[in-house]
Amino acid sequence: MKLNKTLFVGGAFSLLPTFALAQEAAAPSFDEIGPYILTTLLFLVAGFLVFFMAAGFAMLEAGLVRSKNVAMQLTKNIALFGIASIMYWAIGFNLMYPGDAWSIAGWLGPFFAVTSLEPVGLAAADASLDYASVASDFFFQLMFVAATASIVSGALAERVKLWPFLAFCAILTGVMYPISGSWQWGGGWLSERGFSDFAGSTIVHSVGGWAALAGVIVLGPRIGKYKDGRTVPMPGSNLALATLGTFILWLGWFGFNGGSQLAAGTVGDITDIGRIFANTNMGAAAGAVTALIATQLMYKKVDLTMVLNGALAGLVSITAEPLAPSLFGALLTGAVGGVIVVVVVPLLDKFKLDDVVGAIPVHLAAGIWGTLAVAFYTGNWGAQITGILAYGAFTFGVSLVLWMILKSVVGIRVSEEAEINGLDMSELGMEAYPEFSRG
Amino acid sequence: MKLNKTLFVGGAFSLLPTFALAQEAAAPSFDEIGPYILTTLLFLVAGFLVFFMAAGFAMLEAGLVRSKNVAMQLTKNIALFGIASIMYWAIGFNLMYPGDAWSIAGWLGPFFAVTSLEPVGLAAADASLDYASVASDFFFQLMFVAATASIVSGALAERVKLWPFLAFCAILTGVMYPISGSWQWGGGWLSERGFSDFAGSTIVHSVGGWAALAGVIVLGPRIGKYKDGRTVPMPGSNLALATLGTFILWLGWFGFNGGSQLAAGTVGDITDIGRIFANTNMGAAAGAVTALIATQLMYKKVDLTMVLNGALAGLVSITAEPLAPSLFGALLTGAVGGVIVVVVVPLLDKFKLDDVVGAIPVHLAAGIWGTLAVAFYTGNWGAQITGILAYGAFTFGVSLVLWMILKSVVGIRVSEEAEINGLDMSELGMEAYPEFSRG
Amino acid sequence: MKLNKTLFVGGAFSLLPTFALAQEAAAPSFDEIGPYILTTLLFLVAGFLVFFMAAGFAMLEAGLVRSKNVAMQLTKNIALFGIASIMYWAIGFNLMYPGDAWSIAGWLGPFFAVTSLEPVGLAAADASLDYASVASDFFFQLMFVAATASIVSGALAERVKLWPFLAFCAILTGVMYPISGSWQWGGGWLSERGFSDFAGSTIVHSVGGWAALAGVIVLGPRIGKYKDGRTVPMPGSNLALATLGTFILWLGWFGFNGGSQLAAGTVGDITDIGRIFANTNMGAAAGAVTALIATQLMYKKVDLTMVLNGALAGLVSITAEPLAPSLFGALLTGAVGGVIVVVVVPLLDKFKLDDVVGAIPVHLAAGIWGTLAVAFYTGNWGAQITGILAYGAFTFGVSLVLWMILKSVVGIRVSEEAEINGLDMSELGMEAYPEFSRG
Repeated sequence: MKLNKTLFVGGAFSLLPTFALAQEAAAPSFDEIGPYILTTLLFLVAGFLVFFMAAGFAMLEAGLVRSKNVAMQLTKNIALFGIASIMYWAIGFNLMYPGDAWSIAGWLGPFFAVTSLEPVGLAAADASLDYASVASDFFFQLMFVAATASIVSGALAERVKLWPFLAFCAILTGVMYPISGSWQWGGGWLSERGFSDFAGSTIVHSVGGWAALAGVIVLGPRIGKYKDGRTVPMPGSNLALATLGTFILWLGWFGFNGGSQLAAGTVGDITDIGRIFANTNMGAAAGAVTALIATQLMYKKVDLTMVLNGALAGLVSITAEPLAPSLFGALLTGAVGGVIVVVVVPLLDKFKLDDVVGAIPVHLAAGIWGTLAVAFYTGNWGAQITGILAYGAFTFGVSLVLWMILKSVVGIRVSEEAEINGLDMSELGMEAYPEFSRG
Repeated sequence: MKLNKTLFVGGAFSLLPTFALAQEAAAPSFDEIGPYILTTLLFLVAGFLVFFMAAGFAMLEAGLVRSKNVAMQLTKNIALFGIASIMYWAIGFNLMYPGDAWSIAGWLGPFFAVTSLEPVGLAAADASLDYASVASDFFFQLMFVAATASIVSGALAERVKLWPFLAFCAILTGVMYPISGSWQWGGGWLSERGFSDFAGSTIVHSVGGWAALAGVIVLGPRIGKYKDGRTVPMPGSNLALATLGTFILWLGWFGFNGGSQLAAGTVGDITDIGRIFANTNMGAAAGAVTALIATQLMYKKVDLTMVLNGALAGLVSITAEPLAPSLFGALLTGAVGGVIVVVVVPLLDKFKLDDVVGAIPVHLAAGIWGTLAVAFYTGNWGAQITGILAYGAFTFGVSLVLWMILKSVVGIRVSEEAEINGLDMSELGMEAYPEFSRG
Repeated sequence: MKLNKTLFVGGAFSLLPTFALAQEAAAPSFDEIGPYILTTLLFLVAGFLVFFMAAGFAMLEAGLVRSKNVAMQLTKNIALFGIASIMYWAIGFNLMYPGDAWSIAGWLGPFFAVTSLEPVGLAAADASLDYASVASDFFFQLMFVAATASIVSGALAERVKLWPFLAFCAILTGVMYPISGSWQWGGGWLSERGFSDFAGSTIVHSVGGWAALAGVIVLGPRIGKYKDGRTVPMPGSNLALATLGTFILWLGWFGFNGGSQLAAGTVGDITDIGRIFANTNMGAAAGAVTALIATQLMYKKVDLTMVLNGALAGLVSITAEPLAPSLFGALLTGAVGGVIVVVVVPLLDKFKLDDVVGAIPVHLAAGIWGTLAVAFYTGNWGAQITGILAYGAFTFGVSLVLWMILKSVVGIRVSEEAEINGLDMSELGMEAYPEFSRG
């Protein structure tokens, strides 16, 4: 705040003011520094939007579980975000982007990260003027890995134990996501093959979905969910929160896709970001409207949770390529996403795969669709299929092993009694809505 | 994300890299491109803020209806947003701004919009450097039309049928709002007369209010609302959500009014946006505090819903001219808005006009006031009154006819039984809060 | 919106167009105006983020009080924001920053503020090109004072009377906070001593905490809170809202700390803001994870409200110096904040200090810690301790006197009957959740 910056600089870093003055004396032109500043700004704005998706996931999931499990679902969501923040800093970021000029790493070797980032008051001469500040890039990338973990928490809700779940998240965000992410975004083998996934339909959403699917299989369905060959509905306790969560996710997605342009300082880049915003919105709108119409036609009644998931599936679908399509292309892409949700949700139940919030239809199924659809623009179907299979095999495989290890070593499922009474009272000893009686 | 942009460009559009390199070689100066970039950025940031108002309306309305109608209210809000997005793209935008250099239109003629926007990676030489990217402008404008439709959904809550309501929204957002909007913002006859409505007190808010009023008249009040000459209170089910919605709307309004400066790349423009932000906040604050004091004086008890609507009325009031007033002027403008709400809410009840959330006092009455108040700055009372009457006559008239057609052809009101049982169970077959018993 | 700006200018201020044209003719270079534009943009974006913290506080507090007091808590939060907006404009801003080139003050003397801000369409030649627009600065600073008042409302919840509380807020935001704030951010005696508080761990958060502590002492605990030597838990009614509020506050904090860089137009400044964002997030993450682990170890059960408050304490802790630390430093700073919450919450209960939402542990205790920790970077322990003591003595002392005066003159506590029945029905005559029965 006012004055204190100067004062601070005059305190510990008494050399800096001189330095700063010198820099100001020969201030570099905006033609040189403008793109760096604007791209850094893009990462910060897009990053806080994607950050807010953590609140979106928390509200969506809290709204779609029964009230006896709401406090636990909230706990998982805030805890996984904290853990993802620490793990991605400690290990993930350097593992995913090993070649960065500025390393976040420090004391413990190449994968461990403690000290650096750029120095305070970086001089223009020392900056990577063709990109953005490492700190802003780190901030933005971090939010993606947190989203991946949030996807898992929804699918496994109402029965998975807190600490084993968080242990899985730590490995997912610190190791698994960064390794597979580096294949493409770290300049690895998939990027060399021409695979294309603009903002992460596969790299973020399908990865979250695969990890969730493995968990759902190892964990098994909730008690009473599948009975005598039929699926017992277990309606969410608060659709207002679920709707709020969907809108927050939709909002955050502008940052998710828009920020993935990774540049904002030229006419071409900022115009592209405009296309991305418009297409992202269209994908969501088309997904929502399609699910609206589809549920009306199929069930004669609109299903709000399907509409919410339809919007999200539209968003996931457009995420692999939000830039190239026309608005009509975005509409088609999102609409197919909306149909996928309506079709895949009952399909999972047929296989007794109990995904509480519909994370697998939304993030995995629509993510595969969106990634495939990129080939309409690139023509490279082989690369897209390779990428989808590679991420699926790696994430599903490693996750399956990990969930099985966790199951046999510490157990991943709460006791039957705890599940029936609700995780809130049995595991946390508190309720989310202590004063409202259950129907 | 990292690297994939280059790869993608190397895939489908192999000519682009060369192009991009050429462009970089003779990179235009920031003096030329800076305003374009910053104004585009303004539209994107302001646009996502206004987008978020959809969540604000959804929460406000979900909080102010009774719990048996919450899921339906949420459904209407997300559905109307999706429909508005599609209709404004398909028809509205080109209808409203026919003269734009870049047209969103494509295959089906001037009013239909499928293919264009600017190309990916637009070169500076091909950009409208005196304005902003079409995509960002479209994105921003789209959010305004969605707000208009949201206003209607609140007033007609708890009794209007889903699909006829959505049909009305489709016509409102695809045709009605764009036609009347073009009178002013499309450079039409009202703009030539000197009418002034900076961000849409009339063009957005009153239009929504007039459409709502017509619907309220044709639809009639909720069963039991007016009994033996008195008004039966039907309190909202969740004032926490209503308050959240109000705060979200307040937040979004900074984008609504600030983005309407339509330029951010000069000292004058960015300073003006600062004025607009400060004045917008002051309008809301004054509306809230005035309603707080007024309800204390009139009823001896503060009424939270009036305070919320007071803040919103303050925002609507300042929207017609958030730039010219001093902070004191903004305070007065907003304060009158707050009084209007407290006075008009019971007045509507006197006429048995059942507006569930107070949309008509907030958006129509305060919108008229705000639009009138502009004449204190422009001196052109005639133009302001002309504008108010023109928007009123057109929107109210067309809406009335439309609601009556919908009523006679498909019916716009749910059955008496459905209304009493709640729209959630009878129309959707689901509840927003299935586990919480009703008092 | 389109065209109306020009029209408007052509209306009332017919001299402006010529002026604007002249300005465009000799448009200043971005090298001159870029920093002003970007810093103004920073204040607007950071300002709307900090604005949104008002919603965060409202949801956090509404979620942590019992349902019978929710409507009142919401009323207090929106009312205090309105009052803070008006008081900080009328008196506070000029009291805090008396030396500003542009004065917001007008008719009634140096402390009263009515007319000015910069003129519409400020010419570059008339702007303070080394800083930002006054309106944007005012907007940003205003949001800080509102946060201070929000801290108080949480601690005193469920028993303080509405109007005396608002009277206190008026004095806090209009006079007390500005006076003490000017010691440091207004260039006063503390800034001369080398005190350092980047974004307000002390100047905002501890000040709010001290004012709350004085209120808690004068007001006394809620009926039944301390009985027979033990503390009776009074669990919050809606932990979903409390979690949402925490995430909103976390989001807003990026603006709180990032905007406090007070400059965004150089490579050094924008890179610093990136550091601040990353560190702020790390502080919150570390606070949340530490509280998670600590409650598991201490109580064998994770406590969600502690995790929420741990995240907030991490944020408060890093606020005094979010720029200088490495990410590891931020982690340590936030982790200590998380521990402080877990330790201080039961400590307050030992002294029968009934702080409903944990505002004192989070904002006061962690604020002191964060301010002290700055000395690890500046080396100036004396200045930090002086600052902490000065703000404590002044704010606690004046607040104590003020609460006592309010108590003796008008009374600050609702009647016993009103407290037991809940403030919503007894004071407001309405309920937040009228349809949900209490358990």
